[in-house]
Amino acid sequence: MTDAIVPLLSTSLTNKVVEKTRKLIFHQLRQENAKEAFADYVLVIDSKIPSKEKEEFKTKLANTCKLVLANLEKAGLDCELRRSKEDMIFIFVLCSAERLKQEIYRSRVHDWLTGVRIRDIEDGHDSESDILLTEGERLRLVYDVITRSIKENGAGINPGLGEFKLVNSLLPIHNKEYNQTWIKSWSMKWVIDRNDLMLLRDHFGEKIAFYFAFLQYYCLWLIAPTIAGLFTYFFLSDYSILLAIFIVVWSVIFTEFWRRKERELSIWWGVRNFSRVEQRRPEFQEEFYVVNHITGELDPYFPLWKRWLRRIIAAPVIMAFSLILAAALLFYIVLEVTISEYYTGPFREQVIYLPTILYCALVPALNIVYVKIARRLNDYENNETESYHEFSLTQKIFVANFLVGYLSIFFIGWIYIPFNAEIGEFFQSIFDALGLSLTLKPVGPERLKNELKYFILTGQGISLFVELILPYMTRGLAKGVHKTISTGSKILHRQNSLSVDARNEDEEEFLRRVRREVLLPVYDIYEDYAEMITQYGYVSLFSVVWPLTPVLALLNNWVELRSDAIKICVHTRRPVPSRADSIGPWLDNLALITWLSSITNPTFVYLYHPNSTAFTSPSAVLVTVALIWFSEHILSVLQLIIRQCLSAFPSWADELILKEEYELKKKWLEKVEIPPVAPPEHSVQEIIDNREEKGSWFWRNEKRQDINERLAEIFQGLHLD
Amino acid sequence: MTDAIVPLLSTSLTNKVVEKTRKLIFHQLRQENAKEAFADYVLVIDSKIPSKEKEEFKTKLANTCKLVLANLEKAGLDCELRRSKEDMIFIFVLCSAERLKQEIYRSRVHDWLTGVRIRDIEDGHDSESDILLTEGERLRLVYDVITRSIKENGAGINPGLGEFKLVNSLLPIHNKEYNQTWIKSWSMKWVIDRNDLMLLRDHFGEKIAFYFAFLQYYCLWLIAPTIAGLFTYFFLSDYSILLAIFIVVWSVIFTEFWRRKERELSIWWGVRNFSRVEQRRPEFQEEFYVVNHITGELDPYFPLWKRWLRRIIAAPVIMAFSLILAAALLFYIVLEVTISEYYTGPFREQVIYLPTILYCALVPALNIVYVKIARRLNDYENNETESYHEFSLTQKIFVANFLVGYLSIFFIGWIYIPFNAEIGEFFQSIFDALGLSLTLKPVGPERLKNELKYFILTGQGISLFVELILPYMTRGLAKGVHKTISTGSKILHRQNSLSVDARNEDEEEFLRRVRREVLLPVYDIYEDYAEMITQYGYVSLFSVVWPLTPVLALLNNWVELRSDAIKICVHTRRPVPSRADSIGPWLDNLALITWLSSITNPTFVYLYHPNSTAFTSPSAVLVTVALIWFSEHILSVLQLIIRQCLSAFPSWADELILKEEYELKKKWLEKVEIPPVAPPEHSVQEIIDNREEKGSWFWRNEKRQDINERLAEIFQGLHLD
Repeated sequence: MTDAIVPLLSTSLTNKVVEKTRKLIFHQLRQENAKEAFADYVLVIDSKIPSKEKEEFKTKLANTCKLVLANLEKAGLDCELRRSKEDMIFIFVLCSAERLKQEIYRSRVHDWLTGVRIRDIEDGHDSESDILLTEGERLRLVYDVITRSIKENGAGINPGLGEFKLVNSLLPIHNKEYNQTWIKSWSMKWVIDRNDLMLLRDHFGEKIAFYFAFLQYYCLWLIAPTIAGLFTYFFLSDYSILLAIFIVVWSVIFTEFWRRKERELSIWWGVRNFSRVEQRRPEFQEEFYVVNHITGELDPYFPLWKRWLRRIIAAPVIMAFSLILAAALLFYIVLEVTISEYYTGPFREQVIYLPTILYCALVPALNIVYVKIARRLNDYENNETESYHEFSLTQKIFVANFLVGYLSIFFIGWIYIPFNAEIGEFFQSIFDALGLSLTLKPVGPERLKNELKYFILTGQGISLFVELILPYMTRGLAKGVHKTISTGSKILHRQNSLSVDARNEDEEEFLRRVRREVLLPVYDIYEDYAEMITQYGYVSLFSVVWPLTPVLALLNNWVELRSDAIKICVHTRRPVPSRADSIGPWLDNLALITWLSSITNPTFVYLYHPNSTAFTSPSAVLVTVALIWFSEHILSVLQLIIRQCLSAFPSWADELILKEEYELKKKWLEKVEIPPVAPPEHSVQEIIDNREEKGSWFWRNEKRQDINERLAEIFQGLHLD
Repeated sequence: MTDAIVPLLSTSLTNKVVEKTRKLIFHQLRQENAKEAFADYVLVIDSKIPSKEKEEFKTKLANTCKLVLANLEKAGLDCELRRSKEDMIFIFVLCSAERLKQEIYRSRVHDWLTGVRIRDIEDGHDSESDILLTEGERLRLVYDVITRSIKENGAGINPGLGEFKLVNSLLPIHNKEYNQTWIKSWSMKWVIDRNDLMLLRDHFGEKIAFYFAFLQYYCLWLIAPTIAGLFTYFFLSDYSILLAIFIVVWSVIFTEFWRRKERELSIWWGVRNFSRVEQRRPEFQEEFYVVNHITGELDPYFPLWKRWLRRIIAAPVIMAFSLILAAALLFYIVLEVTISEYYTGPFREQVIYLPTILYCALVPALNIVYVKIARRLNDYENNETESYHEFSLTQKIFVANFLVGYLSIFFIGWIYIPFNAEIGEFFQSIFDALGLSLTLKPVGPERLKNELKYFILTGQGISLFVELILPYMTRGLAKGVHKTISTGSKILHRQNSLSVDARNEDEEEFLRRVRREVLLPVYDIYEDYAEMITQYGYVSLFSVVWPLTPVLALLNNWVELRSDAIKICVHTRRPVPSRADSIGPWLDNLALITWLSSITNPTFVYLYHPNSTAFTSPSAVLVTVALIWFSEHILSVLQLIIRQCLSAFPSWADELILKEEYELKKKWLEKVEIPPVAPPEHSVQEIIDNREEKGSWFWRNEKRQDINERLAEIFQGLHLD
C-alpha cells in the first residue's frame, strides 16, 4: 500500500499534459519533478459549528472524517486532511498509478462489453506501453472510485447522502495553466476546430465538450442565415417569402446535420452507445428490493406506478406554474400595450416605465422559483438513471424558457395585431367605464418587430451581464464586506487560524486557492443549453420578422463561446468530467422548434407581407390553417429526404466503426480455422472416378463412369443429335 | 471426400424432424434407415433444344453441367445427375453432416460477431452434443454454400447469372409429410399459437414465418374492431363518431404493438439485428472495383450517382404509370357513375355492364404490366443489398396497390359526393350538347358505402379464387391439353424417354414428383403482404363508412391463414428458407395507412354524419382542414405516448437479451480478476500509522500521528470547544 503514494504531477506540468497525454502513459508524467501541490479531488466537509449541540456535532464530525478516511484508504486512495478556516475541512484525494491502472482496465472491459468500445481488450494496442489516459478520463475514473459502493471496490462516498450528510461536496481542482492556455488560445482564434474540442474533451470530459461542440457547430451554421438575413434586410421586402423558406429549410437541414455530427463526435470521442448502458443514480432511493431476473441479484426497486403517480402529481404543479408565468407575461404585455399605446391619462411619463419595472422584478424571480420547484419535483420523481433524470428536468425547464422567451411574441403576432380592432374596442369600453381617455391607434407589423428586437437585445445583454460581469461584482462586493469584518477585533486570531493547518507558505497559498474554488458556484450546463436553444428559436421562428436576428445571434455566439470558457475557468468550480454521447434531450427541443418554425414562418409571412390581403380576405383563417398544414407536411417530407440522403453517404465515423468491427471479426474468424473441404487439384473426373460404390438406391448405385459418358447418356435422351 | 456421402435422411422421417430436430443433432437423424430418395436441393438446368445451333448448345450444356458438378464437388457437396424428360436436367445436391458442421460453426461465429447472436461461441452450449439444427436452417446453410463464391468456400452457382445462364433454378423439395401435418393441424385449430409459428419458422425460415405471424397477430387484433363494428352496425348511427375514434386509436395501438411484437419475435427466433448485416446480392453488377477502406480489399462498386440517376429515370415511369392507372380508375368511376346514375338513353340495359367489363379487363391487366415494369426498373437500379432491393420494390408495388384499392373510394368520398351538384351540371351540359337525355339524382353517403362494399366483397372473392381455385383449374387444363398431345404419334417413344434415366420405379416416382414441383410458380410473398396491408387499409380508413368492414376482414383472414398454407404447400415451389428480422418495409406502409386514417375518419364523419351541417355550412372547408390538422397532431401525440408507455415496460424478449448479455459480461469480468486493493483488516489508524515518511512537501511531510490527535488538532482550529 505504502508505495502507492507516487511522485506528484505538478501543475507546472499540466499544460504539457494536454500535448503529451496522448503520447505518454500516465505514470510517466507523474515521474517528473513536482513543484506545486496537486490532488485529484477535494472532499469538502462542513464544519460550521452550530449554535447548540456542539458536542454532538463534534462527534458526528469526527465520525464522518474517520469514515471518509477509512473508506478512501480501503478503496486504495491516498488522502490528506487539512482545515480551511473554521467552516470547512478539506480532504485531498490522490489516486496512485497502480490503482488507476486497475480502473482503466476495468473501465475498458466494461466499455467493451457494453458496446461503447469495439476493440478487443486483449488487443495488442492496450498493452501497458500505450494506455492513452487524458486528464479528464483520469478524474472521471477517480470520481468513480470515490463514489462507487465499497462492494464494488469503491469508497462509497456520495456527498450529502446517508452517512455522508456532512460531506458538502467533492470537486476537482482547476488546472490554472490549462485554463490560461485555453482562454488565451480561444480568444485569439476565429474558429474553434476539432483539435481544440478534443483538447477540451480530454480535459473536461465529453459532456462539456458536447456543449461547446454544439455551440461552435451552431455558430458556423449561423453564417448562412446571417448572409440571407443581411441580404433580405438590404434588398428584399419585409416578411420576405424567400427568407421564410430559406430559414425553415435551413432549420431542418441544421437539425439533421447536427444529429449526424453528434454521432460522429460520439464515435470520435469513444463514447458511442454510452447512454444505453447507465448506472443507477446514487440519489435514487429504493422502496424495497426485488430479485433481478437478469442478474439473479437483489436490486433496489422503486415501484413504477409510484413514479408515475408522482409525475402525475407534478404535472398540475408545472402546469399551474406555467399558467402563472404565462399570465404574468400576458399581463405584462397587455399592460405595456395599454400604457404605451392607448393610455394618455395623467402621469403618462412616469407610468410608462411601470411595465418594464414589473417585468424585470417579476419574471426573473418567477423563473428562479420555477426552476427550484422543477428541480424539487424532479428529485421527488426518484428517477433511476441520470439520463432519465436529466431528460425529465430538461423538459420542465424548457417549458418555462419557452414561455418566457416566445409567448409574448406569439401573442403579439397571432392575437394582438390580427385582432387589434377588437382588442381596441374592448379597452375603449373599459377606459370609458373608468373615465380615462384612450386614443386608438392602428397597430402594424412594426409592433411585432419591435417586440422581437427588444427581446433579443435585452435578452442577450442581460445574459452576458449575468454570466460575466455580475460574478465579478458580487465577489468584489463580498470581498469588500469581508474585509470590513476582518478589520474588526478578531483579525489577528483569524489570520493565525487560517494558516494554522498549512505546513508552509506554498501549502497555505494552495489551500487558499482551493478555498476560493470551493466557494464558487457549480457550473450549470442546463442554463447554457437553455440559452442556446432559446436563441436558436429566435433565429428559426422569428428571423422572418426581423432579418437581423441571425446576425445578432452569430455575434452573440462568437462571444458566448469565449465567455462560457471564461465562466467555467473563473466563475465556477471545475466540473467533474462525465461522459455523454449527445446533447441529450436538447436535440428533441431543437426538433420541436424546427417543427414550430414551419408554423410561424408561413403564418407571419401570410399575415404581414406588404402585399398580403390577409386582413381583408374573408377566408384568411382557412388559408392560414391550410398553410400550416401544408408547411408541416412539406417539412416532414423534407426531413425524410434529408435523412435518406445523409444515410446514403456514410460518414468517416461510421466507416471507422465498421473498420474496427471488421478487424475484430477478422481476428476471430482467423481463430475459427475452417479446414479446406475438397482437394482442389482433383479434376471432376477424378472425383467421380474415386467415388466408391455404395448401397443406397438413389445416391449410391451409380457405376464408376466417365463424366462424358454420363452426359452423353443424358444427352441421348434429349434427342439432341 | 468419399466418406462425405452419408446415410440418407428419408422423407418418412421428416415429419419427425419437426419434433426431434430441436433435441437431436443433425447427423443422428441421418443415420436412420432411408426408404425414399432425399436431396437438399435440386438444380434445374434448361435443356430445351433450340431450333438452330444445336451443336453449339450441346457444348454449352455439357460445359454448364461439368462446371456445376465440379463446383459442387469443390465445395464439398454431393451431387447426382438425372434427366427429366427432354427439357430439363436435374442435379440433386446433398450436404454431408461434416460439411454442414463446418457451416454451422462458421454461421454461429458470423452471427456472434455481427450481434445477431449474443452467446459466446466458445460457450459450453455449443458443444457437438447439442447443436440445434432445424430443417429450415439446414436448407438455408446449404443454399448459402451453393451460392457463395468459390473464394469463400462455396460453389458459386447463381442460377441465370454469368456462366450459369443455363441453370434455370435452384429449389428445395417439398417435405410432403410436414406439409400434410401442417395443413391438417392448422385446419383443425381456431388460433395459431406461438409453437405453431415456431414449427413453421423451423421448416420454412423466418421470412415466411414472419408473414404468418403478422397475419395471425393482425387476425387476433381484428376482434376488437369487429365487435365495435357490429355494435355500431346494430346500435349506433351511420358514420359514428365513436367508431371513428375507436378505429384511429386502435390503428395506432396496433401498429405500435406490432412493432414491439416484431422485435420480440426476432429475438425469439434468434434473428435480432439480422437486417443490419447483409451480404451483397448475387445479381448486383459492379461497374468497377474500388479499395474498401474498411477491409482493404477490392470491392465491386456501382457509382452512387448512377443508381440515383436510374432512380430518377424510374420515377417518371412510375409516376406516368400511376397516372395512367389512376386515369383508368377515374375513367371507370366516371363512366360507371354516368351510365348507372345519369344515363337514360338507348341500350341502357346493355350499356350498364360496360364499365364493369372494362374494369375487369383493364385494371388487372394494367396492374400486371405495372408490376412487371416495376420489377424491371427495380432490377435496373442495381441495389447492392437484398433488403434495399426489397424496400425499393415494395414501395413501387405499394403505389399501385394503393391506387387500385383506395383511389375510387377517395374520389367518391371527397370529390364526387361533396361536389355532386357541380359534377351533375357539368354532365348535363355535355349530354345536352350530345343530344342525350340525362336525369339528375342527388347522391348521398349511400353511394360511398356501396362502392366500399363492392370493393371489399369482390376484392376478397377474387383473391380467394385466384389464390386457391384458379391454380387447380389452370393445372387441370394444362394436363388436359398435354394429354391430348401425348395421345399423338410420339407417345411410346416419349414415355420411354421419360423413364430412361431413373434407376428403378421409386426413383421414377421421385423424379416425376420433383418435375411437378419444378413446374410450379415461385411463392411470391409480396403479393400476400400487399393483400394484407390493403385490407388493413380498408379496416383502418373506411370502417366508419361501413362498420361491417372489420367483420369481413376477420373472416377473410381466418380463411387466408389456412389458404396461404395450402398455397405454399400445393400451388408453389417450396421456398428457399431465408432470414428476416421484421416484416421489413411493410411496417412503414402500415404506419402510413395509420396516419391516413387520422385524415379519412374525421373527414368522413364530419361530411356524412346524419346530424352534420357540412353541406350547408359556409365554413365547411375550414372545418375540414382544421379537423385534419388536429386529428393528425392528436395521432402523433398518441403515438408518442404509446411508445413511451411500451418502453416503460420492457418485454420478456428484451430481458432475455439483457440476461444473455449479462451472462457474457459476467464471464468476461471473471476473467479480468482485479486484485484486492487494500487489506480490509487494517484499521484506519493502522493504515495511517504504517504510512512512511516521504519527501514531498504536501503529501509526504505528515508525521506519524494518531488520527484522533490529528482530528483534535484540526478541531482546535475550528474553535469547537
